[in-house]
Amino acid sequence: MAAARFDVLGIGNAIVDVIARTEDDFLIGHNMRKGSMQLIDEAQAARIYDAMGPAVEVSGGSAANTTVGVAGLGARAAFIGKVKDDELGRVFAHDIRAAGVSFATPPASAGPSTARCYVLVTPDGERTMNTYLGAAQDLHPKDIDADIVAVAQIIYLEGYLWDPPHAKEAFLKAAKIAHDAERDVALTLSDAFCVDRYRAEFLDLIRTGTVDLVFANERELHSLYLTADFDGAVSALRNDARAAVVTRSGRGCVVITREETDAVPAYPVERVVDATGAGDLFAAGFLVGVARGADYRTAARLGALAAAEVIQHLGARPEASLKDLARENGFDV
Amino acid sequence: MAAARFDVLGIGNAIVDVIARTEDDFLIGHNMRKGSMQLIDEAQAARIYDAMGPAVEVSGGSAANTTVGVAGLGARAAFIGKVKDDELGRVFAHDIRAAGVSFATPPASAGPSTARCYVLVTPDGERTMNTYLGAAQDLHPKDIDADIVAVAQIIYLEGYLWDPPHAKEAFLKAAKIAHDAERDVALTLSDAFCVDRYRAEFLDLIRTGTVDLVFANERELHSLYLTADFDGAVSALRNDARAAVVTRSGRGCVVITREETDAVPAYPVERVVDATGAGDLFAAGFLVGVARGADYRTAARLGALAAAEVIQHLGARPEASLKDLARENGFDV
Repeated sequence: MAAARFDVLGIGNAIVDVIARTEDDFLIGHNMRKGSMQLIDEAQAARIYDAMGPAVEVSGGSAANTTVGVAGLGARAAFIGKVKDDELGRVFAHDIRAAGVSFATPPASAGPSTARCYVLVTPDGERTMNTYLGAAQDLHPKDIDADIVAVAQIIYLEGYLWDPPHAKEAFLKAAKIAHDAERDVALTLSDAFCVDRYRAEFLDLIRTGTVDLVFANERELHSLYLTADFDGAVSALRNDARAAVVTRSGRGCVVITREETDAVPAYPVERVVDATGAGDLFAAGFLVGVARGADYRTAARLGALAAAEVIQHLGARPEASLKDLARENGFDV
Repeated sequence: MAAARFDVLGIGNAIVDVIARTEDDFLIGHNMRKGSMQLIDEAQAARIYDAMGPAVEVSGGSAANTTVGVAGLGARAAFIGKVKDDELGRVFAHDIRAAGVSFATPPASAGPSTARCYVLVTPDGERTMNTYLGAAQDLHPKDIDADIVAVAQIIYLEGYLWDPPHAKEAFLKAAKIAHDAERDVALTLSDAFCVDRYRAEFLDLIRTGTVDLVFANERELHSLYLTADFDGAVSALRNDARAAVVTRSGRGCVVITREETDAVPAYPVERVVDATGAGDLFAAGFLVGVARGADYRTAARLGALAAAEVIQHLGARPEASLKDLARENGFDV
């Protein structure tokens, strides 16, 4: 196995977040499920945007956020995802490259505009997401550059990639290249309703070893096994997955391997301003820990630290230097 | 004089801010004058954007920010300014309307793209601005809707309007309509280097009574009279202007009328995160106070309160409810 050029390669939907604060009534009035992600078409996007308050635009995308976190921790990151050659596409490309992530996927020159996610942040800090997939629809297997995939120590894939029509094939192509090059493949389940849409396929990916490491939050885990019994779901996942981490918001996370189940605490924060990106940044810290040879417990603590930073401000990209933060907290990054 | 339909009508450059944190070295390396605004062309815009770090996009524009502050304080606001019919133009229009400001200037369908300001925020909270005027160049006198100008109690104009080629004529047309309708005209000097470009014309506007109320910060005042002597400059302005307010950052402001010069303190803040919009929001509070019949001292305190809110977070648009904040602090808004 050749030396890795990247610690983590993320593959996901390339999205610009359009973030506005709102009251719970707005979610109810627009039939939105609080805390989850729903897909919207262009007409719904226009309706929601017209109705929502003043917003800020911040580059997003789940796996993209994770790679930015990886780079912020001083590790080497790359990203594959599809934007259009339009203003928001240029914003996305600028931001991810300026964060130190290698990003070379050619933008679409025609077709729908760059993907947007209308993120509604309620006073409790919870975020509710409405995604117009736009150009992210056009991620094709041909966008998976084997030369990049084969030199990444871990490739990290979003469950959200099951939504665009061809991205699933791109995902599977990347996983095969990675395994052929003796690399590891990680998957995040992304969202409880996303799990609901693709339960059987996700279980198949996990059970066949197409993915080596699974990230899920509690709701996604419960959705995967159609149960409200946390311990039962953890046992099931332990049986199905080589390794997994289940995040539990303020209650920390549970690291699951064939050998053991280990609970790791969260970092306390004064106030959750915006939960957007918490899971993405947890994954960033965890993956950097693993890539650098730390034990899972240390990796989980680094993940918790990165997540704590991102929930204390608006947007899913870190504002502080994660590397400095990690060093101040005794991590060897 | 008919009853006013708007408390404040702002006329200015319609701009989306692209804000990134940076170190002082970046400003030095790019020959930027810290704390000021410089105009850049498309090639410079591309160079700066390529070099700057990850950014967030927040609607801006000096007078536009002021009208958003006015609406946030519960008063009636309108704005006139030029965007293009492109993605950032739609962002600008959405944000200002969603903030409750009436905005009906038709967007340009051709020509340069919507104006952007690359705002570099240094660790001390100071902001350094680089403006690509783009579509804001195309504000013409025909965009000044007499039916709107005549029903605004105060019209508020940016000195920055002297930069685009036809906006100056738009400014003068609006001032004449306002005075014919017995309304007041306020002007902000905008920036010390802007004053340097148009000193004689600004002095002429003030001395001829084309403007009734002048907003300036210390640096702009010093630039206007080419002196480092604050008291001397205040005396000169007192002689030239019907009324004026000079803001002095953390040291509050000085209200200047023919009768007296009154120093009003600032609201203390724990830490200046981003000074962008401080002057704009000060003007918002002051104008709302004046429009509601408060004395200048009370108006200045309301301005100071609005400014204190906006410097405690990134971006020049308020994040908290200014109306609630004002009421909590004993203002009758």
